Amino acid sequence: MREGLKIFKIGGGIIDDDAQLRQFLKALALVPGRKLLVHGGGKGASQMLQNLGIEPQMVQGRRITDAATLDIVTMFYAGKTNKQVVAGLQAAGVNALGLSGADGNAIRAVKRPVKDIDYGFVGDLPADAVNTQLLYRLLESGLMPVFCAITHDGAGQLLNTNADTIASTLARALATQYEVELHFCFEKNGVLRDVNDDNSVIPQITAAEYEQLKAEGIIAAGMVPKLDNAFAALDAGVERVVIENALRINEPVKTILCQS
Amino acid sequence: MREGLKIFKIGGGIIDDDAQLRQFLKALALVPGRKLLVHGGGKGASQMLQNLGIEPQMVQGRRITDAATLDIVTMFYAGKTNKQVVAGLQAAGVNALGLSGADGNAIRAVKRPVKDIDYGFVGDLPADAVNTQLLYRLLESGLMPVFCAITHDGAGQLLNTNADTIASTLARALATQYEVELHFCFEKNGVLRDVNDDNSVIPQITAAEYEQLKAEGIIAAGMVPKLDNAFAALDAGVERVVIENALRINEPVKTILCQS
Repeated sequence: MREGLKIFKIGGGIIDDDAQLRQFLKALALVPGRKLLVHGGGKGASQMLQNLGIEPQMVQGRRITDAATLDIVTMFYAGKTNKQVVAGLQAAGVNALGLSGADGNAIRAVKRPVKDIDYGFVGDLPADAVNTQLLYRLLESGLMPVFCAITHDGAGQLLNTNADTIASTLARALATQYEVELHFCFEKNGVLRDVNDDNSVIPQITAAEYEQLKAEGIIAAGMVPKLDNAFAALDAGVERVVIENALRINEPVKTILCQS
Repeated sequence: MREGLKIFKIGGGIIDDDAQLRQFLKALALVPGRKLLVHGGGKGASQMLQNLGIEPQMVQGRRITDAATLDIVTMFYAGKTNKQVVAGLQAAGVNALGLSGADGNAIRAVKRPVKDIDYGFVGDLPADAVNTQLLYRLLESGLMPVFCAITHDGAGQLLNTNADTIASTLARALATQYEVELHFCFEKNGVLRDVNDDNSVIPQITAAEYEQLKAEGIIAAGMVPKLDNAFAALDAGVERVVIENALRINEPVKTILCQS
């Protein structure tokens, strides 16, 4: 039997709130077994860009990562946020080790090809992006890898990369070695039957049920790409995907996605 | 016989010059065997503090690391500089992995006690600061650790720490496992007999010769604390200390310090 590995992804909301972040890190410290964290950005980088007078570059309504923006997001994600999270986990007794994709060549991305829009220094992840050998060694040494959403192209260029994509790509790649549970943590208690009622969490959704919930319009809008991504990870060998409240990861309330 | 380990320290001057930094990283890639890099700050953080309107806090002529300054130096050193150096080394074929002292609890510091001056969030390194087991595992996995000058106290607080001190503390700690050569790289060709003549490099200095050169006033001013620190490292088991030009590390011109 393969050993278990829990991969957690947290987003901007919790990163921006020091007290909530501390609460999450303490809860994470209580999760037993091998674990890995991926954190998104938060509003700090945008605020700093504004304070420095760097205007957000938008093309056709899409945010572009130009060189100045990449510098700031690298500083924020790989510097401030990543090191605060790592220091917080160390204080909670977890031997965390922060990584960008460049470190140990952990995640090698490809600069997004220019089609209609040039997104700038944004990385897409090919199927073989992850250095599973490195992560296996770190995990088996008792370390908890903590990824920020910065990767590299192997030729010296850092790339801004979607944190959800990093989490699911890591989950797929590590599913060859571990029984992987992928946890998307956000501000809701799970996938809701009624978006206005935080107590309407659907405890479990199979692939067939997901198709029906989409057809009925119960799952719509922003949840669809998130769940499409989640079910794709299940198809690719991830054991279980969990959608849950970042502040309630050790409580039973959550949505568990599974193939059948 | 113990295996060799070369520890390189580079400072601000080279960090601030993209072309020189690339040249150094390419030269570093050619150095055979186990190696580790410690990088200092550079002027970028000061420039950003100024751009953000954060005034340098000075007490009795000494720079203080207040919370706002710590945030920015962490972003710059652990984020921008560390990741650029790591990505540059990866591009040069070196499997570099960036670390602050918090990562893997690599270096645990103590906030400098307040005596005459409160330096703020500055870390001093006790004798047992270094997690040698972690570094041994990384080095034996073929990774090259790249340290920025940020450490932690183990209780969640990041601390700004002198890069020379980090380099010599790492060298002493790792001397128990490796035959360590500590390289201080700067803009001069070595220790100069005539400070105005870059060709007057003293090729080798023993502890006894150092005392004489100090007594004669040939070595003075800024070089004294650097070399005191270097000879203390030799006393503590480091095999050799090298003072050299960051852009000429693979050339024979350099000063080698040894006990006798």
